[in-house]
Amino acid sequence: MTENLHGKNFIAGELKAGGAQSARAVNPATGQQLEPEFIHATEAEVRQAAERAEQAQEKLLRLGSAPRARLLRRMAEEIIALGDPLIDRCHLETALPKGRLVSERARTVNQLLMFADLLQEGSWVDARIDTAIPDRTPSPRPDLRRMLIPIGPVAVFCASNFPLAFSVAGGDTACAVAAGCPVIVKAHGSHPGTAELVATALKRAVAAEKMPPGMFSLIHGPGKTVGVQLVTHPLIKAVGFTGSLRAGRALFDAAASRPEPIPVYAEMGSINPVFLLPQALRDRSKEIARGLGASATLGVGQFCTNPGLVIGLESEELDAFIREAGLLFKEATVETMLNKRIHQAYQEGSSRLRAVEGVELRAEAIGAPDVGRTQGRPALYSSDDRTFLDNPLLREEVFGPSSLIIRARSREELLRIAATLKGHLTASIHGSEQELLDYSDLAAVLQRNVGRLIFNGFPTGVEVCAAMNHGGPYPASSDSHFTSVGTAAIYRFVRPICFQGFPDPSLAPELQDENPLGILRQVDGLYTRDPIPR
Amino acid sequence: MTENLHGKNFIAGELKAGGAQSARAVNPATGQQLEPEFIHATEAEVRQAAERAEQAQEKLLRLGSAPRARLLRRMAEEIIALGDPLIDRCHLETALPKGRLVSERARTVNQLLMFADLLQEGSWVDARIDTAIPDRTPSPRPDLRRMLIPIGPVAVFCASNFPLAFSVAGGDTACAVAAGCPVIVKAHGSHPGTAELVATALKRAVAAEKMPPGMFSLIHGPGKTVGVQLVTHPLIKAVGFTGSLRAGRALFDAAASRPEPIPVYAEMGSINPVFLLPQALRDRSKEIARGLGASATLGVGQFCTNPGLVIGLESEELDAFIREAGLLFKEATVETMLNKRIHQAYQEGSSRLRAVEGVELRAEAIGAPDVGRTQGRPALYSSDDRTFLDNPLLREEVFGPSSLIIRARSREELLRIAATLKGHLTASIHGSEQELLDYSDLAAVLQRNVGRLIFNGFPTGVEVCAAMNHGGPYPASSDSHFTSVGTAAIYRFVRPICFQGFPDPSLAPELQDENPLGILRQVDGLYTRDPIPR
Repeated sequence: MTENLHGKNFIAGELKAGGAQSARAVNPATGQQLEPEFIHATEAEVRQAAERAEQAQEKLLRLGSAPRARLLRRMAEEIIALGDPLIDRCHLETALPKGRLVSERARTVNQLLMFADLLQEGSWVDARIDTAIPDRTPSPRPDLRRMLIPIGPVAVFCASNFPLAFSVAGGDTACAVAAGCPVIVKAHGSHPGTAELVATALKRAVAAEKMPPGMFSLIHGPGKTVGVQLVTHPLIKAVGFTGSLRAGRALFDAAASRPEPIPVYAEMGSINPVFLLPQALRDRSKEIARGLGASATLGVGQFCTNPGLVIGLESEELDAFIREAGLLFKEATVETMLNKRIHQAYQEGSSRLRAVEGVELRAEAIGAPDVGRTQGRPALYSSDDRTFLDNPLLREEVFGPSSLIIRARSREELLRIAATLKGHLTASIHGSEQELLDYSDLAAVLQRNVGRLIFNGFPTGVEVCAAMNHGGPYPASSDSHFTSVGTAAIYRFVRPICFQGFPDPSLAPELQDENPLGILRQVDGLYTRDPIPR
Repeated sequence: MTENLHGKNFIAGELKAGGAQSARAVNPATGQQLEPEFIHATEAEVRQAAERAEQAQEKLLRLGSAPRARLLRRMAEEIIALGDPLIDRCHLETALPKGRLVSERARTVNQLLMFADLLQEGSWVDARIDTAIPDRTPSPRPDLRRMLIPIGPVAVFCASNFPLAFSVAGGDTACAVAAGCPVIVKAHGSHPGTAELVATALKRAVAAEKMPPGMFSLIHGPGKTVGVQLVTHPLIKAVGFTGSLRAGRALFDAAASRPEPIPVYAEMGSINPVFLLPQALRDRSKEIARGLGASATLGVGQFCTNPGLVIGLESEELDAFIREAGLLFKEATVETMLNKRIHQAYQEGSSRLRAVEGVELRAEAIGAPDVGRTQGRPALYSSDDRTFLDNPLLREEVFGPSSLIIRARSREELLRIAATLKGHLTASIHGSEQELLDYSDLAAVLQRNVGRLIFNGFPTGVEVCAAMNHGGPYPASSDSHFTSVGTAAIYRFVRPICFQGFPDPSLAPELQDENPLGILRQVDGLYTRDPIPR
């Protein structure tokens, strides 16, 4: 199948390659370019994708949610039907182990099915009904019925580090489609072949379910040109992005300066601080060290939830912990990173870290990295509170398999460090249950600055469920109101509308008196699945 | 009481007047300046307000929601206790009739109480719990619990046209306080004395309920300087605004270009198109004309939901409707507008409208306006589809008591007009129930572009309730996800946080196993008020 890749853009079900620019993917494990050339979308093709998405949007609004649930399930089936060639091509383009990619495919499929289930249950539309009170004085109350509707065509950017679960048919696409929005995906230059294969599956699903073809497009090209053209097209109404702060902010700025500004939901990663309280180190030092080693080096540290910073109180126990964790970093394998740019950024970030006076390299993986194979070397550093507080550089994310452990000389210094950590996806606290109560001030400070607060666990392994929050204050994400993982992610791509005085036959089923879908609604202030009495 | 106004800023419970700039309010009905001078806040005072708000935020997070509900109720009591002097001063500053101000005070108080009730019920925090599955393969599921928490200190801008209900203790303040956010209000230059009186009430309420004084501040000064200083202060995390597109966009741009961008919820008004379908004109022409006349001239047309545009099919019935409506505009009274700037903008907007070839003045209020008394003259215009489609100027809001009726030569032209109307708070359709079904394409087009769609009613009179949506696509509001009226407005000022693996005693009551508050939660995918079995 991979041999048959065509390298073209998918514009509303048709293949287009009118552009003169192109690029090939690179196998990071060999440095060799992969066939074929992927043709960058022209501005006319971007425009056409947006216009077809707008046409699809109008049709979608009349269809109701059942066809969208079927489409999501069909997308899942078609992705599975791609079989091994998808995993093979993805492995070639990203060097991620096949086992990991098989898991990531399962997660991708499960996300699609989860949103199909959410649509089938139906209550997510947050239906609110205040019935008329004709005889109220001084003025009657009209009948008011509110629900959520799609915001309009959505631009989704593939993420370098999740070629399946946060790319063409990833979380953003799944919830935009669930919300009822057509999607235009911009492929990532690191894995355009993977994107093409998944796009083939989505195109088949759209056709099989007889959905409007403008529902889905895939375009290739650089973010700075093709990506910005997409985000600034007037018919695009929201953007989903996972990646670096620099790229995410550039898209945010482009969207905010449009004549009609639109929201950009950019998840931009973070340093994910881990706090080690004294009792935890006394009770479970080795276990926590093992957890840290595994979490920090998982997938060559290429997760936005990678724990890049650890803070503990200066003590013999902390020293022992650092030694123990060091052993695990030494034993970690040296593996190929996703692409040259990420590898280079890791090298540069590591060099900057090492150059800081007061930062000590405590352990490095034993295997020598092969630069020709884009390999990143796991490393553990340590430093002290003063150095940390004096060097804002140490609060910056180094994307890759390294962690920095800070020795705080007192509880006050530990809290001071916590107070400087603004805008992270997660923070973790290891301690006894009593310690967590004793350190409630630490938990309170962290709560202000993170999207997810973890007790006796590590941040990697983001559960996909209703209660997940994957986001957080800037710069973890560009809009802390929303998660990009879990069912609540759908709320990024909808907005409320209120119908006043509408007769039943002109209302969507979600708002009709009979409540034919049996969803949970707020009716005159009460939560109920009951119909409204006539 | 009014004689005792001091003109100072309220910074966390203290009166401050360190600035050299000041301004007085003007009585629009006489053109005379009112005592006293209101001292503009200095940059240091703005900074101090933000810092005290941040300190208050930390305390607030630990208090839970019950004290906030008590605070909201106390605020309502203290506002009522201000008595007639509040109405008197407000009338002097705005020329709004005292009857209207008494109603607006009732609405303001009811908004505060509505949010207190919302807190007491408690389910608004959208608690979601996915319990641990320790034996899941390949990896266990951790316990995850998510709820909404305050976003941080909020800046609120008083609205010129709602000196009570969208000003110091208005909707934005009520829901920010309900959300658990400290509030810094910037007074409007048109009614600073009203602001001071209400601030006195809020200060008393904060003290009486022993809440942290940084919970509330009030500052005076121009939006361009003091307002922008407030919005760009790093400790401010969100902004509520109601006013003009120009001022709203300026705040939006200032907030979006911060190192840490923050959301601006700006409700910027709209033209609120009204569509008249043929059967409605045959059946109820006079009744609809009366409704239009009343809605368009209510409060000298100074509502963001004022119906500025009416579209019907060219017909004898439409001509008769225009004549009928014209009579009502002729009979309308000439009244004082809110301030010179608004009056001047209305004059200029009216002149621009009259200058368009093809636009005809059909009726004007008989009474001659007294410019010294800042009076605006109700006026009704008509034109045809071609003129409308050729002149984008006719799609712009003229804030004041005028409406433009468009004769569309065909159903297609009527739909074409509808398709050009982007981003309105409301649209209204008058017709029979069967016509609404026959014109489902019209309803579909309007649904894409408005926040509230009204059948056989008029847009003024915004109900304050759960189902209300007061917002809409840009430029009606800067963020179509959120309403600024009704209980859902609280969601502007909160964000989710997820607690992973947290023991019960360290969780907020909303997330504890026992569900001590008895709120509705999503537990393992089901909506329930039940406790979680151990």
